[in-house]
Amino acid sequence: MTTDIKAALRALHIETPSWAYGNSGTRFKVFAQRGVPRDPYEKLADAAQVHAHTGAAPTVALHIPWDKVADYGDLAAHARDLGVGIGAINSNVFQDDDYMLGSVTNPDPAVRRKALDHLLECVDIMDATGSGTLKLWFSDGTNYPGQDDIRARQDRLAEALSAVYDRLGADQRFLLEYKLFEPAFYTTDVPDWGTAYAHCLRLGPKAQVVVDTGHHAPGVNIEFIVAFLLREGKLGGFDFNSRFYADDDLMVGAADPFQLFRIMYEVARGGGLEAGVAFMLDQCHNIEPKIPGQIRSVMNVQEATAKALLVDRDALAAAQAGGDVLGANAVLMDAYNTDVRPLLAEMREEAGLAPDPMAAYAKSGYFEKIAAERVGGTQAGWGA
Amino acid sequence: MTTDIKAALRALHIETPSWAYGNSGTRFKVFAQRGVPRDPYEKLADAAQVHAHTGAAPTVALHIPWDKVADYGDLAAHARDLGVGIGAINSNVFQDDDYMLGSVTNPDPAVRRKALDHLLECVDIMDATGSGTLKLWFSDGTNYPGQDDIRARQDRLAEALSAVYDRLGADQRFLLEYKLFEPAFYTTDVPDWGTAYAHCLRLGPKAQVVVDTGHHAPGVNIEFIVAFLLREGKLGGFDFNSRFYADDDLMVGAADPFQLFRIMYEVARGGGLEAGVAFMLDQCHNIEPKIPGQIRSVMNVQEATAKALLVDRDALAAAQAGGDVLGANAVLMDAYNTDVRPLLAEMREEAGLAPDPMAAYAKSGYFEKIAAERVGGTQAGWGA
Amino acid sequence: MTTDIKAALRALHIETPSWAYGNSGTRFKVFAQRGVPRDPYEKLADAAQVHAHTGAAPTVALHIPWDKVADYGDLAAHARDLGVGIGAINSNVFQDDDYMLGSVTNPDPAVRRKALDHLLECVDIMDATGSGTLKLWFSDGTNYPGQDDIRARQDRLAEALSAVYDRLGADQRFLLEYKLFEPAFYTTDVPDWGTAYAHCLRLGPKAQVVVDTGHHAPGVNIEFIVAFLLREGKLGGFDFNSRFYADDDLMVGAADPFQLFRIMYEVARGGGLEAGVAFMLDQCHNIEPKIPGQIRSVMNVQEATAKALLVDRDALAAAQAGGDVLGANAVLMDAYNTDVRPLLAEMREEAGLAPDPMAAYAKSGYFEKIAAERVGGTQAGWGA
Amino acid sequence: MTTDIKAALRALHIETPSWAYGNSGTRFKVFAQRGVPRDPYEKLADAAQVHAHTGAAPTVALHIPWDKVADYGDLAAHARDLGVGIGAINSNVFQDDDYMLGSVTNPDPAVRRKALDHLLECVDIMDATGSGTLKLWFSDGTNYPGQDDIRARQDRLAEALSAVYDRLGADQRFLLEYKLFEPAFYTTDVPDWGTAYAHCLRLGPKAQVVVDTGHHAPGVNIEFIVAFLLREGKLGGFDFNSRFYADDDLMVGAADPFQLFRIMYEVARGGGLEAGVAFMLDQCHNIEPKIPGQIRSVMNVQEATAKALLVDRDALAAAQAGGDVLGANAVLMDAYNTDVRPLLAEMREEAGLAPDPMAAYAKSGYFEKIAAERVGGTQAGWGA
Repeated sequence: MTTDIKAALRALHIETPSWAYGNSGTRFKVFAQRGVPRDPYEKLADAAQVHAHTGAAPTVALHIPWDKVADYGDLAAHARDLGVGIGAINSNVFQDDDYMLGSVTNPDPAVRRKALDHLLECVDIMDATGSGTLKLWFSDGTNYPGQDDIRARQDRLAEALSAVYDRLGADQRFLLEYKLFEPAFYTTDVPDWGTAYAHCLRLGPKAQVVVDTGHHAPGVNIEFIVAFLLREGKLGGFDFNSRFYADDDLMVGAADPFQLFRIMYEVARGGGLEAGVAFMLDQCHNIEPKIPGQIRSVMNVQEATAKALLVDRDALAAAQAGGDVLGANAVLMDAYNTDVRPLLAEMREEAGLAPDPMAAYAKSGYFEKIAAERVGGTQAGWGA
Repeated sequence: MTTDIKAALRALHIETPSWAYGNSGTRFKVFAQRGVPRDPYEKLADAAQVHAHTGAAPTVALHIPWDKVADYGDLAAHARDLGVGIGAINSNVFQDDDYMLGSVTNPDPAVRRKALDHLLECVDIMDATGSGTLKLWFSDGTNYPGQDDIRARQDRLAEALSAVYDRLGADQRFLLEYKLFEPAFYTTDVPDWGTAYAHCLRLGPKAQVVVDTGHHAPGVNIEFIVAFLLREGKLGGFDFNSRFYADDDLMVGAADPFQLFRIMYEVARGGGLEAGVAFMLDQCHNIEPKIPGQIRSVMNVQEATAKALLVDRDALAAAQAGGDVLGANAVLMDAYNTDVRPLLAEMREEAGLAPDPMAAYAKSGYFEKIAAERVGGTQAGWGA
Repeated sequence: MTTDIKAALRALHIETPSWAYGNSGTRFKVFAQRGVPRDPYEKLADAAQVHAHTGAAPTVALHIPWDKVADYGDLAAHARDLGVGIGAINSNVFQDDDYMLGSVTNPDPAVRRKALDHLLECVDIMDATGSGTLKLWFSDGTNYPGQDDIRARQDRLAEALSAVYDRLGADQRFLLEYKLFEPAFYTTDVPDWGTAYAHCLRLGPKAQVVVDTGHHAPGVNIEFIVAFLLREGKLGGFDFNSRFYADDDLMVGAADPFQLFRIMYEVARGGGLEAGVAFMLDQCHNIEPKIPGQIRSVMNVQEATAKALLVDRDALAAAQAGGDVLGANAVLMDAYNTDVRPLLAEMREEAGLAPDPMAAYAKSGYFEKIAAERVGGTQAGWGA
Repeated sequence: MTTDIKAALRALHIETPSWAYGNSGTRFKVFAQRGVPRDPYEKLADAAQVHAHTGAAPTVALHIPWDKVADYGDLAAHARDLGVGIGAINSNVFQDDDYMLGSVTNPDPAVRRKALDHLLECVDIMDATGSGTLKLWFSDGTNYPGQDDIRARQDRLAEALSAVYDRLGADQRFLLEYKLFEPAFYTTDVPDWGTAYAHCLRLGPKAQVVVDTGHHAPGVNIEFIVAFLLREGKLGGFDFNSRFYADDDLMVGAADPFQLFRIMYEVARGGGLEAGVAFMLDQCHNIEPKIPGQIRSVMNVQEATAKALLVDRDALAAAQAGGDVLGANAVLMDAYNTDVRPLLAEMREEAGLAPDPMAAYAKSGYFEKIAAERVGGTQAGWGA
């Protein structure tokens, strides 16, 4: 059994986002950190460090226009040289003054056109980089009751999604992200999985839902959604992070490691480890160093997955079938309570890596190097 | 315009539930009240009072087995004599010891069969009473992680729903209710509108979603769901009530009258006043007298609807199209801030009713009569 | 260090509540279970089983009037014979029809007097049983805005608390419980720790706050409250349980084991393990067997406490002082991720107990015995 | 009675914050608007417009260092010339890189000293401007469990508050603000009213709590807190705004006008209209024009207060004393359902103002003027 678990863990790839290496913050303050990248090339270099020490983060998501470059082929080659690849392309239709009242759902058709053009441009970049996945998140919504027509905005959204869908190539898909609120504070045009699902269902198999673990109302059971979407064949991927309150964007597993375990259990149980589900991080390291923050997050997903794989499914099924509430729960908890860190350390050593990626990175001198080298220029951040 | 509004308000029928006239409470205590009905006939008599004073509550929902009678034809005739009709049939697969671990999703096939038989029996009662609507609420879920297989429970649910769907007659439909939690405290098998929607969509046009206004996570925008389901042709009806916290089942409009107005605005805007949407109350009058509680609730829905109809849609559309955030919001708020009680009083007088239903009921002596007559026997409650 | 940890764990006593052994449920249904006690004597016998197998639950809380007996001296002697003692006395001013609109805050002075008399009677029972702790929970509140005067209710509450305080003996204290909502659905008269704290502060050292882990709004940081109350010398005890949604009353640690660990860490860090803080369970085993439910809960508190004691405080303090966000978090997580079950098994064997209390209880035949013997009579439940 | 109501409404002054006239936004984007002030003098000019059209906003709160000027006497004189005065001084210890891990609670004593110096400087500015109120909000907290010592941070907080308290002059006070979360995402050092209350109580009468209506967990009953703090003599003021989700900072009354009414009812009932409670706005007009946003907000507070004053207190007290749940609620709702806009329009005309401040401002040409004049320079925003 350990052999199977190890094989499954080896196959688990976690994509890190280029923007995690730049500065981030809240509306109150973005704290600048030393050594932060100034351009997409430096971001990829940092992402490569995460892969070098974990062996589990072989791709990097790009965000357009933050990662706009003159030559995407050159960027992809640079990534390859660093030992990583280009992952999902993330569109951005929320940081232009024109989008104050929405992008693809804006009441103004000219703004909608501009937003759609950007989305289509992202597919061009997919073609140029070989990326197979477009991630669509819309900040669109309203702040005040009456501000706009809720239903008409759905019509506009459907129209834009349809145009993007039609533009996708044979091996390309888009993932539609939902989010309860923020930055819109009254309605959001894709507020929940049901809305994303309904749009994707209408469009076809190349449209799938992405679950950002921080985008739900308090109390919502995320693993239920995961299980349901897998059953429907509509779970496209995850944006992993964690939260105590709203969309806090803390390191995945930091706020509720048991929840992450339950999610990964449903992923495993529903075949999600073998079904092309994209496991991506989407976090803000506002006060912690960025590269170690990503390394720790990759490790957290690995540990949760290892525990999920340790669940004795036969024993569980027997207890469930027998209506043994405490017994079934105990089977799950036995796996959760197991310390899987030795197993993962062993696997890393088998792969020629240091057993503790955090310590290995700290010792590597990489941070001291970038802190010394990356002086001057404009640090990357959410806006750049 | 007032003519149109009055016509729309006259067409607005609000169904009251037979169980609202019995005792209810929390897990801590059910407080007994005087004059409470002892059987379905007395419940109908009380419901008829609500219609007599409001002119807007012409049908009564039944709950099986609480309202089981030997002769449903006789019960329907009794209702007719009282001036009301039989509305939706509500199934109950949560109050038998067999359902401790679920009804149609129970791991035990014998329990599932028993539950399904009850649902099919409810369709028989629809045939017998002429009811066109079956309301399905499942308390099914789990309390502990691992307790049962989340996904297998969806398979079982789908199987049961399909069997019920196939049994429906040409003019019959079912409404599938969702609820975030309670009585299940870890997962609920139909926790949100997305789940109900996905099941209904697969089944066909006779399956629709019912929105209980108290069944959402904190912060969820209910009017968005209403607008979305109307756009999809899948909004079957409402279970109206209100809440500050969880599923408090207070009188509709009592906790957040502005929310009720926004919901009714989306209903009106989406054509829901003309589309067969069932407007039903589902409340618990734990500490307030039941008949006046229902009268007040009917009035609250009328007032919210009147305000929704008062919205100047042309002015709103113009402000929305122009991106005038404050102007569009002001158009909506102008309607909300209008005191519509005089309009509704006038309409009641035009219909031969007293202008103030609460005062008219209080003066009628009905309560004194039932309090004196209904002594002995077993008062109706959630369990009877 | 392990020696210290073991000593601290041996000193950790968890009080189980008599009512946990009776039937419980939700407003929808109380499912009956086999073997449930019919009287306080049988409840104590079940509680003694929990202690027999864990060695950590030496006292049992009583609930008046559910546990009313003719001779409390006899009941206390019965407990002693079973190897357990009487713990806190819990008052009940919520299950009489007179309390529909409140008990000590009721607008009717006669009801207030009745409620106060009950509270004073509970102190009499403390005298008779030797209990040093009175637990006060008030379901008092309102369901509708305007229903009663929020501020006047505080005056009435203060008056009652003062009368009870004055009646306490030299070695007696009361613990005031707060709860956000349920059964009151608009206001609760003691809704949060601040309210309980303010009342207790005014009264003096014999009045302390009890933290029920299920009684907070979503997102509230419970360990912060624990740390704060310990700093103020006002943390009297815990009612342990867990929840995903509202006051679900699941087994402690079942919903969020990491939260329980964080709470126990603050308890340990704030001196709460040596300061007379009462660690009590207050749960509802609606669908799981009751005695094993309590055993598992005791084990969960032990495991969380063991992990909390494993935190390397020197390393933590150093990382905190150095502003090392990830390092400090890692120190905490190292302890949390440790599998402490072997340590606790070892300790049990050192104490002459079976290493696995759940298995030992299952093998003991006790359940089969009570299921066979306890036939007929009225099963204990929340109402009896 | 109308005479009394008018007198009370005339006495109702609502302070607007200088920062509401600058640009604001979310972490995703700050949308620039035309005509936005470039310095404190221009902010005061805009604030004066709000007062000119409402007659109810005679003072303006300053934020240091955003409103730092060379000569505060000159700024105060400028305000006087514009017909307004200087209100509360708001400190800012969250926008310097040094505050990444906290200000007065930072583990580093040098940072704590810097933060305290800033707070004391704010008292100097109070002296210079004649302001009697210092508003203290601390973004301090932690993002990850273990990051810092929760209890030690309280000690540091208490020390700083004490130093500020001692520096206050005879006619000066400080208001301590609490906030559940954001920007800190695990713990906040003053997360709730209880924490703020406990600190203020220990310090004395010049320390009071300020209630920001957007700073609570979901479901928390704000009017209860208001009533409680008034009873304790510790309600210092309000930061008004509204929210559907987190701390959305929408216009007060926009999300839940009924809640605002209930709050103002408790203010009136508890003597808060005559007790020096500061009524302040603290909002972000991210997508709506700023000056009209403030005018509308002032009007919303006036309307809610007018309704609160219309409550028939004798009838309410009688219904409450009689336990008439529906009757008491109806008394409150009668006031809420009244359209008070005509009354307020009448009062404005009596005061020589236009009856509709929104229309009057729109016609005034002021916006066109500032949009034309304020070109170049750096627009004020949260960071400037």
